[in-house]
Amino acid sequence: MPHIDLPEGLPGITSGFAFRPETAKPMRELAHVLLHGPSTLTGGERELIATYVSSENDCYFCQSSHGAAAAAHLGKDAALVDQVKRDFLQSPISGKLKALLVIAGQVQQGGKHVTAESVEKARKEGATDVEIHDTVLIAAAFCMYNRYVDGLATRQPQDPAMYSSMGEHLAAHGYITPSMEVVS
Amino acid sequence: MPHIDLPEGLPGITSGFAFRPETAKPMRELAHVLLHGPSTLTGGERELIATYVSSENDCYFCQSSHGAAAAAHLGKDAALVDQVKRDFLQSPISGKLKALLVIAGQVQQGGKHVTAESVEKARKEGATDVEIHDTVLIAAAFCMYNRYVDGLATRQPQDPAMYSSMGEHLAAHGYITPSMEVVS
Repeated sequence: MPHIDLPEGLPGITSGFAFRPETAKPMRELAHVLLHGPSTLTGGERELIATYVSSENDCYFCQSSHGAAAAAHLGKDAALVDQVKRDFLQSPISGKLKALLVIAGQVQQGGKHVTAESVEKARKEGATDVEIHDTVLIAAAFCMYNRYVDGLATRQPQDPAMYSSMGEHLAAHGYITPSMEVVS
Repeated sequence: MPHIDLPEGLPGITSGFAFRPETAKPMRELAHVLLHGPSTLTGGERELIATYVSSENDCYFCQSSHGAAAAAHLGKDAALVDQVKRDFLQSPISGKLKALLVIAGQVQQGGKHVTAESVEKARKEGATDVEIHDTVLIAAAFCMYNRYVDGLATRQPQDPAMYSSMGEHLAAHGYITPSMEVVS
């Protein structure tokens, strides 16, 4: 039961977006630039960072939708997404992505938790300044999106097919246009 | 010493904005809508929410700049801003703003910390659904801005006059246009 009178029939963040289109616009644009815009990080890598942070923040809607988007980017490898959430250091991802996920986890705890050592490690693994910047900002932004989704107590359906369909749409088209037509 | 090669001479978040204009645009727009756009909450009330959350997140740049913007809205009452950060329940603000600050503090801890009781209390004090929505989102958004500023280890000058001048500019003009010309 949402804390405020959000429109029914829209899952998670999409109900907040429909309730307040003025704030939805920049929030969608930020997600689009970070996760779908031009980048030397792949869409799969960026969605894994978003999924991991959402998992650490215990946000069901965000870890499910972005986990599905990550899986869509990664050849439908949902098992890999689960492994990254559980224990990314043991998962079969690159050393660079592991180092970036360490930074993302530090940001999730608080900005001051990021250490010069973790940044240096990422740089040694080949991460550029822009990639480090975007990792910090993806992690910070999901500390916003996760709190928005759960702070309003949005309705979060538990239908895997809905998240799968949403994830495929997001991976293909990004975040500027509403994704809900694919599940309505 | 910033973790990445941010442009020198720009304080706090403005160096991140200059480094990555693509993400700066929606981040500025979101702040503008939330803190400076049309609202039944005053600019002072909204800046106090932003300042309180930034203080709870221990972000020096954000609590100083938004604290100065709050003071600019509130007849230069910096003592009130300090009191709200320290112990808002004992400060001479409205019951409605106290109830909204309770919600903001819950969001700062995590979205699931927001309780139906705290929302009900705010509603009894006269808060509307949009005001509750915007409080949740201001608090969530500053959990992003604060982490961005500190997660990059941006340079944060300790010159009160700079923050005072920045706060007056922000209170008067908002967030879409760069505010740094007033301090350069």
